Amino acid sequence: MFEKNQNVLVVSGHAADYVWRAGGTIAKYIKHGAQVKVVVLSLGVRGESNDLWDKPGQTFESVASIRKAESQAAAACLGITDIEFWDYQDYYMDLEDEEKINRLATLIRTFKPYHIITHGELDLLNPDHDAVNKYVFKASVLAISNGVQLPGTETSKQTRIFGFEPHQTEICNFKPEVIIDITETMDMKKEAMNCFKAQSHLIEYYTVRAFTRGNHARRLSGSKNCKFAESFTRRFPYVGDWLV
Amino acid sequence: MFEKNQNVLVVSGHAADYVWRAGGTIAKYIKHGAQVKVVVLSLGVRGESNDLWDKPGQTFESVASIRKAESQAAAACLGITDIEFWDYQDYYMDLEDEEKINRLATLIRTFKPYHIITHGELDLLNPDHDAVNKYVFKASVLAISNGVQLPGTETSKQTRIFGFEPHQTEICNFKPEVIIDITETMDMKKEAMNCFKAQSHLIEYYTVRAFTRGNHARRLSGSKNCKFAESFTRRFPYVGDWLV
Amino acid sequence: MFEKNQNVLVVSGHAADYVWRAGGTIAKYIKHGAQVKVVVLSLGVRGESNDLWDKPGQTFESVASIRKAESQAAAACLGITDIEFWDYQDYYMDLEDEEKINRLATLIRTFKPYHIITHGELDLLNPDHDAVNKYVFKASVLAISNGVQLPGTETSKQTRIFGFEPHQTEICNFKPEVIIDITETMDMKKEAMNCFKAQSHLIEYYTVRAFTRGNHARRLSGSKNCKFAESFTRRFPYVGDWLV
Amino acid sequence: MFEKNQNVLVVSGHAADYVWRAGGTIAKYIKHGAQVKVVVLSLGVRGESNDLWDKPGQTFESVASIRKAESQAAAACLGITDIEFWDYQDYYMDLEDEEKINRLATLIRTFKPYHIITHGELDLLNPDHDAVNKYVFKASVLAISNGVQLPGTETSKQTRIFGFEPHQTEICNFKPEVIIDITETMDMKKEAMNCFKAQSHLIEYYTVRAFTRGNHARRLSGSKNCKFAESFTRRFPYVGDWLV
Amino acid sequence: MFEKNQNVLVVSGHAADYVWRAGGTIAKYIKHGAQVKVVVLSLGVRGESNDLWDKPGQTFESVASIRKAESQAAAACLGITDIEFWDYQDYYMDLEDEEKINRLATLIRTFKPYHIITHGELDLLNPDHDAVNKYVFKASVLAISNGVQLPGTETSKQTRIFGFEPHQTEICNFKPEVIIDITETMDMKKEAMNCFKAQSHLIEYYTVRAFTRGNHARRLSGSKNCKFAESFTRRFPYVGDWLV
Amino acid sequence: MFEKNQNVLVVSGHAADYVWRAGGTIAKYIKHGAQVKVVVLSLGVRGESNDLWDKPGQTFESVASIRKAESQAAAACLGITDIEFWDYQDYYMDLEDEEKINRLATLIRTFKPYHIITHGELDLLNPDHDAVNKYVFKASVLAISNGVQLPGTETSKQTRIFGFEPHQTEICNFKPEVIIDITETMDMKKEAMNCFKAQSHLIEYYTVRAFTRGNHARRLSGSKNCKFAESFTRRFPYVGDWLV
Repeated sequence: MFEKNQNVLVVSGHAADYVWRAGGTIAKYIKHGAQVKVVVLSLGVRGESNDLWDKPGQTFESVASIRKAESQAAAACLGITDIEFWDYQDYYMDLEDEEKINRLATLIRTFKPYHIITHGELDLLNPDHDAVNKYVFKASVLAISNGVQLPGTETSKQTRIFGFEPHQTEICNFKPEVIIDITETMDMKKEAMNCFKAQSHLIEYYTVRAFTRGNHARRLSGSKNCKFAESFTRRFPYVGDWLV
Repeated sequence: MFEKNQNVLVVSGHAADYVWRAGGTIAKYIKHGAQVKVVVLSLGVRGESNDLWDKPGQTFESVASIRKAESQAAAACLGITDIEFWDYQDYYMDLEDEEKINRLATLIRTFKPYHIITHGELDLLNPDHDAVNKYVFKASVLAISNGVQLPGTETSKQTRIFGFEPHQTEICNFKPEVIIDITETMDMKKEAMNCFKAQSHLIEYYTVRAFTRGNHARRLSGSKNCKFAESFTRRFPYVGDWLV
Repeated sequence: MFEKNQNVLVVSGHAADYVWRAGGTIAKYIKHGAQVKVVVLSLGVRGESNDLWDKPGQTFESVASIRKAESQAAAACLGITDIEFWDYQDYYMDLEDEEKINRLATLIRTFKPYHIITHGELDLLNPDHDAVNKYVFKASVLAISNGVQLPGTETSKQTRIFGFEPHQTEICNFKPEVIIDITETMDMKKEAMNCFKAQSHLIEYYTVRAFTRGNHARRLSGSKNCKFAESFTRRFPYVGDWLV
Repeated sequence: MFEKNQNVLVVSGHAADYVWRAGGTIAKYIKHGAQVKVVVLSLGVRGESNDLWDKPGQTFESVASIRKAESQAAAACLGITDIEFWDYQDYYMDLEDEEKINRLATLIRTFKPYHIITHGELDLLNPDHDAVNKYVFKASVLAISNGVQLPGTETSKQTRIFGFEPHQTEICNFKPEVIIDITETMDMKKEAMNCFKAQSHLIEYYTVRAFTRGNHARRLSGSKNCKFAESFTRRFPYVGDWLV
Repeated sequence: MFEKNQNVLVVSGHAADYVWRAGGTIAKYIKHGAQVKVVVLSLGVRGESNDLWDKPGQTFESVASIRKAESQAAAACLGITDIEFWDYQDYYMDLEDEEKINRLATLIRTFKPYHIITHGELDLLNPDHDAVNKYVFKASVLAISNGVQLPGTETSKQTRIFGFEPHQTEICNFKPEVIIDITETMDMKKEAMNCFKAQSHLIEYYTVRAFTRGNHARRLSGSKNCKFAESFTRRFPYVGDWLV
Repeated sequence: MFEKNQNVLVVSGHAADYVWRAGGTIAKYIKHGAQVKVVVLSLGVRGESNDLWDKPGQTFESVASIRKAESQAAAACLGITDIEFWDYQDYYMDLEDEEKINRLATLIRTFKPYHIITHGELDLLNPDHDAVNKYVFKASVLAISNGVQLPGTETSKQTRIFGFEPHQTEICNFKPEVIIDITETMDMKKEAMNCFKAQSHLIEYYTVRAFTRGNHARRLSGSKNCKFAESFTRRFPYVGDWLV
């Protein structure tokens, strides 16, 4: 099922989203030899850095600098070598913009991801996450359309799109559709989470989440070895040769 | 992804359901060496043999005999060697019965299916199909519970449960979650469908359905080779090592 | 759109349900020459006669007798000449019974309704209503199946099935799909409602409901003349020659 | 039910949408004397002309010219004499624009459609279609509001709005609510579809779809004569004098 | 449960929305000593003043002036002393605008509402109402984010957000989650509604709605005294010390 | 909001359900002086005692005896003095039985609960839990109906019904509607959970769940003090004097 040439593109609304929600899966793909690229659309300076702003004297630039350093350190813990920080404003994030959509469509055409992981369809507490979901979908559609002329690219093929868990799953209509065993990379994920010093409450929260999903994974699969897991939605049906 | 020891149990409400909705998938599993067992709960004499009753002089027994012969012939076309015909009444099918539930739980414990394929959760036109869905689920729960003592059995492990497409999908809230490429066994499926002489309209209908799902499969996967497909719901989330 | 030979069968869980929820529509069909039959499954003695039981000395029989007389009087106000009172217990109503299902299937085969009106799919406050919905559907399926042998009947054709509004619509997931203008029979409905002396609060309630649906009808159709209306769900899609 | 003065406005996102999804219904209305206007918002040069772009040397203009000629030829096959090609960009289509909304609202006020047919609420594979759905709804609301001053127009009346089937219905939550028998115009639809030479896979796909819906129509209505059908959603409840 | 320091902010899309849907609740809060602020985003001149435009010689300014006077008079009837009229265009209302979002976020930070009442998530007949719902949510998120720097403000705390009933509840997926007894202020609400002379049909409509919700309140709570009620959705789960 | 005379009835499908899902809330009500009664419908010998059966030599009676003792010990930890063990079979639990329904209706009439807490509407992994939900609802309806004559009782008043969290919330469509802060009784809940020695994996699981819900409670309410919480669905809308 795993093939090394199945590139993974991760599109993260803010500096830490990809770590909390997909860090274990990313680390596992990299560890086994897949090519993974992470795009961080914004540093989350305005909306996801509350604790940093509590310190007196902070400016947009100082917070941005801390967030970027933290995100880079976390990426290193997960084995990520290919990470881009884009320049978008957060809170709120305006992605209904042709230039921005073309930028991501271009990246999809050149990186040619087999899988894309990004925010799911609804986050009742975070409008930026919803905007990213729509943005990624639109860009992915442009990428596969012959008539969309983007300099230096050629049309790419249909990708699979997976959605992160939101912070509060049930009220966001999130249902796990694909649960990935991350037992072998959980330690790397913990290390990565620890890079975000100002958000220690989330570190425990997502550790506990991985434990909970591990429990679900064992119950649903009947196999005993999964201790930690991450779950995702799948935008489209699975297509294949065998029942999975 | 395919392993020969992944047994498949198919539970079919009436004599032909397993052919229309899963014939290609069943034939593919058997062709590649998996063990497949089909249980036909009723012959559909009362509710799914309309055309046969149009001939004068028919009796319950005569229709039952034709239906059973047709279903056996179809099974042979698909390569099925293990098929059981149970004795339940259809239209309506009363499966809220401890003895019947135990019978199926016992079969699950002894056959030990890795996958179960049966009717999905809602068929707005066929109450028997809904009853079978609940029946299979209940039996599967009893099968994995240590305290349920069924003579000659020991507790089995959690199975995966997949749901057939109903006749009219959208009004039944059916969404394809797993689409299986049946191009290599479509001819066998056609032969099997042709055994049900009194229902020629359904033969064309399900041929067309396989064509439609093949189109979806190509569009969603980006691969060109799938010509025919069958689709299923998945009762529980997928659990595994990699995104699928 | 209206043709006199489009028989209407109304299946009412309790003695007054058909009046509150469909009285205007029934009266209109009868007034224009259609044949309408009402089946009252129970008198609602246990569950829908609270006010009657407040009087000292009541017995099951005395309440039943009052309820039946009220229901007959109401039927007369609506022009109904064909009403049957069946003998089922209410609260709760057990309709998962082959004999009862056959009884209704037999009636469907002999009366041959073009439309059936009965309780909708969910009443979060009244489990009897849900049971009636399932019961009518099952009987209607048996009625159209050649193999279901019911003495003195022959197979009938597919009917359309419409659902009553429940008392509290939104929490029951009720959505109006078909809104019928009952302006011309609203006075008859009021008279009929007035027969249920012990439930005066419901008389005002359903008068107000008809006013509210009339407002909706005007807003949605752009025509000004509808003052009162009743609304229903439609179990299956509309099939026809033209957009409606 | 059909009256000649019930004008139909069809708003099609791209050059061929109105043919695949409503060609039979449009041809039927025209054949029986109704006035039908089709507005094609874009030629689908960027997103729905993949096969054309496969030929070397194509430009936006050359593809546009082919698409327009094909769409005009198809319209002629259906008997359409009133078709407008607007100048919008597709993939993605930005319709959150006051001038564009006013343009359509003006057209609604002058053409005065009784029915509007356009894209349904969700197309999980095509963001343009979703945009068109919202656009038509907004314009229809402006058209009926007295205070919206559009030069040369007066306020129009509420219309009925019907939604096309998307390509993959179930994953888009599409449910057929109105199924129209197009047996008498199926040949015209086939001819029209054949005009789009570069999309032969869709011709078979939508032929098969009409066959499938014809099967549904027969099953749901109990009448035998419908061979081909098209289905639509209905944005608002049906309002009328009789159950339909 | 009621504490005087629980400020209420009401955000009303048009001049009369807050009266029809929340007038009784607002009056009750004020009567008991709470601080309530109402923001009217637009006067509804274009879209919600149909009757006024029927008189010859009206201009945007003349209608605006009447609507504002009516809204002020209604506010006075409810005891509202703090009402702001913002300058937004209605039909359609474009609120995807950073300046507008910041304006409301600033107001939230300075007024510090404990509760916000505004339009619910979907109004199938009124796109402005949907836009307001999104607008209020986005502004509320910005208001609680430390990194969002708005001159003269400091970060506020999470508020509770309640949604108005739309005009036609069921087709908008509206479900009452919180039903408020407004018996004691129903007379004030009637007086306030009477200020909107050009919309007398809505006065009766919302009187009847309050009666209907009162009936629901009695049925669901088992207490007899509630005669009139208003209902709302609740965007987030209730959090507290005891079951409510 | 809390009043001592608000009795709470808890109906638990198996011996431990009330502890895992509502132990903290129960303990809190008791601690503050409310009267709480727990009814355990079955001991869960067949379906929820897997670990106990792993030991050789167990019989139905021996497992039942252990489960009952554990449940009694847990009840004591929570301060429960009123607990009843009924005699129903689990896996599967057949509660469509007039005598059983009357038994619970009688208890409701005599205990007169203000709140009932029991299983929610869907547990995709446990059919017994679904059966209990329906059972409690039916009994509650009978209890409030004057015409339902149950010896030694008089009609009771409408109760509020709350639903437990199922084991895997999202796939069961569970959404938290009421989140109760159990910080002050979390230690008692832990002690109670520790009584179920054979299910240590669930102890950690539900400890973690309480932590997760505590995080949600803080985020949604803006108050910092809640460390642990339990969440429930609410079957009916909230009715009251003020927004909650």
